[in-house]
Amino acid sequence: MSGCPYFEKRHLLFKNKPPTTDEDEDVSQAGVNKASKGGIIYGDYLQLDKIVTAQVLQSELKGNKIHDEHLFIVTHQAYELWFKQILFELDSVREIFISGHVRDERNMLKVNTRIHRIVMILRLLVDQFAVLETMTALDFFDFREYLSPASGFQSLQFRVLENKIGVPDNLRVPYNRRHYRDNFKGHDSETLLATEREPTLLKLVEEWLERTPGLEVDGFNFWERLEINIFDGLNQEKEKIEKMPDSEDKEEMMAELVKQKELFTSLFDEKRHDHLLSKGERRLSYKALQGALMIYFYREEPRFQVPFQLLTSLMDIDTLMTKWRYNHVCMVHRMIGSKAGTGGSSGYHYLRSTVSDRYKVFVDLFNLATFLVPRHWVPKLNPNVHTFLYMAECCDSSYCSSEDSD
Amino acid sequence: MSGCPYFEKRHLLFKNKPPTTDEDEDVSQAGVNKASKGGIIYGDYLQLDKIVTAQVLQSELKGNKIHDEHLFIVTHQAYELWFKQILFELDSVREIFISGHVRDERNMLKVNTRIHRIVMILRLLVDQFAVLETMTALDFFDFREYLSPASGFQSLQFRVLENKIGVPDNLRVPYNRRHYRDNFKGHDSETLLATEREPTLLKLVEEWLERTPGLEVDGFNFWERLEINIFDGLNQEKEKIEKMPDSEDKEEMMAELVKQKELFTSLFDEKRHDHLLSKGERRLSYKALQGALMIYFYREEPRFQVPFQLLTSLMDIDTLMTKWRYNHVCMVHRMIGSKAGTGGSSGYHYLRSTVSDRYKVFVDLFNLATFLVPRHWVPKLNPNVHTFLYMAECCDSSYCSSEDSD
Amino acid sequence: MSGCPYFEKRHLLFKNKPPTTDEDEDVSQAGVNKASKGGIIYGDYLQLDKIVTAQVLQSELKGNKIHDEHLFIVTHQAYELWFKQILFELDSVREIFISGHVRDERNMLKVNTRIHRIVMILRLLVDQFAVLETMTALDFFDFREYLSPASGFQSLQFRVLENKIGVPDNLRVPYNRRHYRDNFKGHDSETLLATEREPTLLKLVEEWLERTPGLEVDGFNFWERLEINIFDGLNQEKEKIEKMPDSEDKEEMMAELVKQKELFTSLFDEKRHDHLLSKGERRLSYKALQGALMIYFYREEPRFQVPFQLLTSLMDIDTLMTKWRYNHVCMVHRMIGSKAGTGGSSGYHYLRSTVSDRYKVFVDLFNLATFLVPRHWVPKLNPNVHTFLYMAECCDSSYCSSEDSD
Amino acid sequence: MSGCPYFEKRHLLFKNKPPTTDEDEDVSQAGVNKASKGGIIYGDYLQLDKIVTAQVLQSELKGNKIHDEHLFIVTHQAYELWFKQILFELDSVREIFISGHVRDERNMLKVNTRIHRIVMILRLLVDQFAVLETMTALDFFDFREYLSPASGFQSLQFRVLENKIGVPDNLRVPYNRRHYRDNFKGHDSETLLATEREPTLLKLVEEWLERTPGLEVDGFNFWERLEINIFDGLNQEKEKIEKMPDSEDKEEMMAELVKQKELFTSLFDEKRHDHLLSKGERRLSYKALQGALMIYFYREEPRFQVPFQLLTSLMDIDTLMTKWRYNHVCMVHRMIGSKAGTGGSSGYHYLRSTVSDRYKVFVDLFNLATFLVPRHWVPKLNPNVHTFLYMAECCDSSYCSSEDSD
Repeated sequence: MSGCPYFEKRHLLFKNKPPTTDEDEDVSQAGVNKASKGGIIYGDYLQLDKIVTAQVLQSELKGNKIHDEHLFIVTHQAYELWFKQILFELDSVREIFISGHVRDERNMLKVNTRIHRIVMILRLLVDQFAVLETMTALDFFDFREYLSPASGFQSLQFRVLENKIGVPDNLRVPYNRRHYRDNFKGHDSETLLATEREPTLLKLVEEWLERTPGLEVDGFNFWERLEINIFDGLNQEKEKIEKMPDSEDKEEMMAELVKQKELFTSLFDEKRHDHLLSKGERRLSYKALQGALMIYFYREEPRFQVPFQLLTSLMDIDTLMTKWRYNHVCMVHRMIGSKAGTGGSSGYHYLRSTVSDRYKVFVDLFNLATFLVPRHWVPKLNPNVHTFLYMAECCDSSYCSSEDSD
Repeated sequence: MSGCPYFEKRHLLFKNKPPTTDEDEDVSQAGVNKASKGGIIYGDYLQLDKIVTAQVLQSELKGNKIHDEHLFIVTHQAYELWFKQILFELDSVREIFISGHVRDERNMLKVNTRIHRIVMILRLLVDQFAVLETMTALDFFDFREYLSPASGFQSLQFRVLENKIGVPDNLRVPYNRRHYRDNFKGHDSETLLATEREPTLLKLVEEWLERTPGLEVDGFNFWERLEINIFDGLNQEKEKIEKMPDSEDKEEMMAELVKQKELFTSLFDEKRHDHLLSKGERRLSYKALQGALMIYFYREEPRFQVPFQLLTSLMDIDTLMTKWRYNHVCMVHRMIGSKAGTGGSSGYHYLRSTVSDRYKVFVDLFNLATFLVPRHWVPKLNPNVHTFLYMAECCDSSYCSSEDSD
Repeated sequence: MSGCPYFEKRHLLFKNKPPTTDEDEDVSQAGVNKASKGGIIYGDYLQLDKIVTAQVLQSELKGNKIHDEHLFIVTHQAYELWFKQILFELDSVREIFISGHVRDERNMLKVNTRIHRIVMILRLLVDQFAVLETMTALDFFDFREYLSPASGFQSLQFRVLENKIGVPDNLRVPYNRRHYRDNFKGHDSETLLATEREPTLLKLVEEWLERTPGLEVDGFNFWERLEINIFDGLNQEKEKIEKMPDSEDKEEMMAELVKQKELFTSLFDEKRHDHLLSKGERRLSYKALQGALMIYFYREEPRFQVPFQLLTSLMDIDTLMTKWRYNHVCMVHRMIGSKAGTGGSSGYHYLRSTVSDRYKVFVDLFNLATFLVPRHWVPKLNPNVHTFLYMAECCDSSYCSSEDSD
Repeated sequence: MSGCPYFEKRHLLFKNKPPTTDEDEDVSQAGVNKASKGGIIYGDYLQLDKIVTAQVLQSELKGNKIHDEHLFIVTHQAYELWFKQILFELDSVREIFISGHVRDERNMLKVNTRIHRIVMILRLLVDQFAVLETMTALDFFDFREYLSPASGFQSLQFRVLENKIGVPDNLRVPYNRRHYRDNFKGHDSETLLATEREPTLLKLVEEWLERTPGLEVDGFNFWERLEINIFDGLNQEKEKIEKMPDSEDKEEMMAELVKQKELFTSLFDEKRHDHLLSKGERRLSYKALQGALMIYFYREEPRFQVPFQLLTSLMDIDTLMTKWRYNHVCMVHRMIGSKAGTGGSSGYHYLRSTVSDRYKVFVDLFNLATFLVPRHWVPKLNPNVHTFLYMAECCDSSYCSSEDSD
């Protein structure tokens, strides 16, 4: 960045590494550091020799340089650059979960910050379409033939991203009747397979939600208390309605009550949950769903404030991924039309089909909105539980040191 | 882009190149094209092997990997990628002006579209700070020392961009009392010097404005007519005011009138203009200023509609460059503080000083707002002039073919 | 706006109205103007007494004030305020078309600027969801019951907007099996009916496209020339392919050629067009479609530059309306879930169904991307035609004066 | 909003108010609710009769309707609508602080969420300039005279907002040599005076920071420990440098060390702090500054995670207010020019002067970036302190009930 004093020489004195006992070494390093006075410069640091020389126009190679191909390349490179960053953040978050460091609640700030950063990047990527939209269908047509058979479908990073978040193989829309992985060759195909087998963000969040303090059956037992409260509440409503004089209103209210009862009966029906799970209509385990709802209801408890923000950010990711897909669809419509009635595969229609709740990994967090209840139906935390909620789990020294070592 | 059907194989039949007489060659090419069936794929096309492997953390090299340095690198790389694109558009526009192709008014669409594209990219770059702002001062502090002495001041592309638009050497704020070019070594320094000597966008626009049809002294003579109308108008106002009974109001109006007269007298004073020009307070020649004002007043004439859009976009570029600078300042303040009272160079204060009208290349286009007059003071186009304004300049075949050859 | 010197007293001397012969009147008006020295102030000008007092919380009225209802109200009011502005711009553009003023090409700048302004407002409205998204499903649940039975479906301005752009009655998705107009009472319902009968933007643009110079059968006859060129081109391709030795490639190329031929045959088949028109799959008349394609191909001709921008902006409007709908869907999903399996009407699913190409008014402009051809297939303008394209239509005085009188 | 199912009738059964003992009352209310079946509708709820009828063009009243004035009015009304919302959030946050409810840490989620909402609104308002920028200087000139003497400087809400955040009277830039309050009449002027006397957000945050757990001199005593660690650290650096062989490097490092020592000496100098405070260069008390730095260093402690987010959001508000001011300046430059050299008050130059750190209320939070130190210099929390940091303050029942009653 221009004149950015970030980079200014400063605080060479400060070493972030803990001081070693061997002081001489430290001094010599300082010396080396100084020696490289003209040392690393901006362009080398950012490897600009790679970045800004990677724009080779196929149209130019084929002897018919088309101006707008440059924009096309740079835009896609910018997308890939940001995908790289998203994957970097995502991997670091997954690592915190996998290693169990998330049990030290101090690491929740990191998790939250990084997930939020992914949100901010996705927001930028959604806006970024406005730049590519300065190219018209006619400009695109001029160089389109030269791209064949390269296809954006081949973006490895995007597929990896989907896999790591938790888009499952079996919910993907096939592309030209082919499995998505068949669009990738040897090494890339293996990479994809590997990411399908790693724990997804969804899976890791699920495990974390299952451990939500307060779910313990021999403890606060949130789920049972909630069930009791809800059905007590509904029954009281029913009694009130029954006392009303007969009227159309009364009938409607009773009908509505019946619906509510069905709805909540379904919530507490584990078998039904597992059935929906098997169909891909739910994605979180029954226990994790309970944890999520508990965090929703007690979001103001200090210990749940940051977890609640995390759940919100996870929905943001889903929403933004889907907005990205939709903006992509809109641009494709503009660039190549819908080709309605022409037969043959339609990229436009394929893409449209991916703007679907099937691709929403955290769809359960959205759908929990269906199961909200009045505040006074939510089980009260007794003073003990209250205290317990504040208590951090023990943090041994091995955990603590972990916070610097990602 | 994921699943982007842009890239789909299609229309292989269509050759944008005019058909050659040697048909066999064409067929064989088609064959070759088919042969490379697995041909160019997405990752190779975008040279992702370069793009997504160019993130080397200095902190990691020094044995103390700091997570957030990755974001720092990627963000700066994204900036440089877009700077590359802006320069590509800017160079193509400058080339249209330099080659004289702008005289074929068909090329105005290209000029306008590309300048507008620069505007859209700059808008994205201003928004892009929101991503880097997810890094706090504390995160930055952890790896800041490793960057020394790399400095964003060393962004060659940004300096080239400033030069090519038209930020002049002598209006630049010195950085630590050093000439800006002294921050660059050998080849880069020469590149900068070269760009200072090339025709800037400002210069090229100036020449184009000087040719605005209607300025000819032996023709419509816009400038003389305007001067006459304005002073006639002011004199009529004066007479009206003089007829009013004495009052505080009358005095105020008369005082205001005197100011207006001074203001417009200064507008028509070529010597004063040249004086302001020499001080850097104006940047366009006297004649070009007339052209710009003419385009302002007659912007609805078909021939001036696109030129008027162009002037507006040039102001957009200035505004967005300056907003970029300001957003940069805001982030630096957050990252390193103002270091008030600590002595030593302050990057923050340097950057603040560049958020200045000295860096607004098209400042005259803004300041023309001071010289607007009521519509009925604007000289009427007589039917002849009207016709003449619609007439395109002759476009010979060499020009016409130019439209495909940028 | 704070300290905004826009409002500053200045140029009281300048009267935009042409000077009257009765000078005394003018002076006295100036006097009156001065008399109102403390005259109109900011808050009165903007009628802030209405604007900032219009936030009445239903939850508060019902004795249970919920903080977030205020945001809900203000956000919706901001939407309605901007809908008002969009309608104001839209009406003015429609008026220019209806009155025939668009035949004076000077008015194209106005048309273009105002349509572009609608685009910029819609862009803001899409972003505006980010503010309402700071409210969670749980916050919303707290006051949701108090809103019944008010429904966003009842936004009169939004329905009027859809009607005036050109969403036709018969392509609308029914809401709970009811006609959309049945959600509105007496006067509002009549307003809607009236707007359905007024000329829509689509209709007006269609008429304008039908007049595209160059379509005349006894003149340049673009459509016939294009048809000839395309089929000549395809035949040449066919011959080349036939000369190739037999191979899989050859077969594929031939198959693709057949598809292309079918595609273009359909383009020139007026009956098929009318059939698609009757089904709502096309929306522009056959002649207007020709005009649009002509503007596409000759967009660099000075006379077509601004029309081409207009077509692009019309697609922007469609795209942004549809993005607005989709962002709306995303928020609703978050706020109330999908209520899958609960029975009863699902607002979420209704809204999803409106994110459809059925609601894209200018869908034909998108789909024309299917019918692009190589530049050398586009009929050449001969020098005469070239000249004719530059020629403006005669502009009599009544037209010219129109430019000030909207 | 169109078709927004938010508003849908649903869950009438759910009463958020705790159930009363008098069941009959509850049932009757439900009845009333049903009775108003056609009850409140969208337009009435939002008081659209006020909102969308409040656009009266002065130019039209004066007999010369200028189209673009409508945009001017609507834009300003949208700003004022959002200012209202910002003030609503700000007041609710201030109330939580003033009432002491912030001591119940459960309320921190509310504080944080609402401050973040202000951030999101300000972000929208910064973007909103893009809409008004579709109006050119020439369009504005056509109706500008009619606005006199209304001035954006007269936006009461904006001044109230500045006051409530904490822009102090004595740091304001005078406007035309007049006190800012003199631009307001009677009642408005009193409102402003009143807001100057109420506790500002700055003041309330200051008090809260002063209570940061860990600052207690008889407890963890963060400040003393930090001072010891820093100077120990600096001394160790000094010793190392002294052992180096003489060289230019050594001299530079020693010079840098001296600067650092001065810098940190100034940090721990309470008198110097108070001096800077009196000059307006610092705005937080010495104790509050300590609290802020403590939150910075221990931001990962569960108890400090949300407070750290809050400090970040407060900087966001400052940054966005200042970006808003700067964008405003940019637009004014475009609309009326800088009027350089014309004499008379310059709105442009006044506005520029308000884009100043004097208007940054939380400037200290930015400048703390100057005082960061390596992680191993930060005093370690011993296990006891660790525990203590997790402990919530006792929350009695009166507090707890408060969370529903804002």
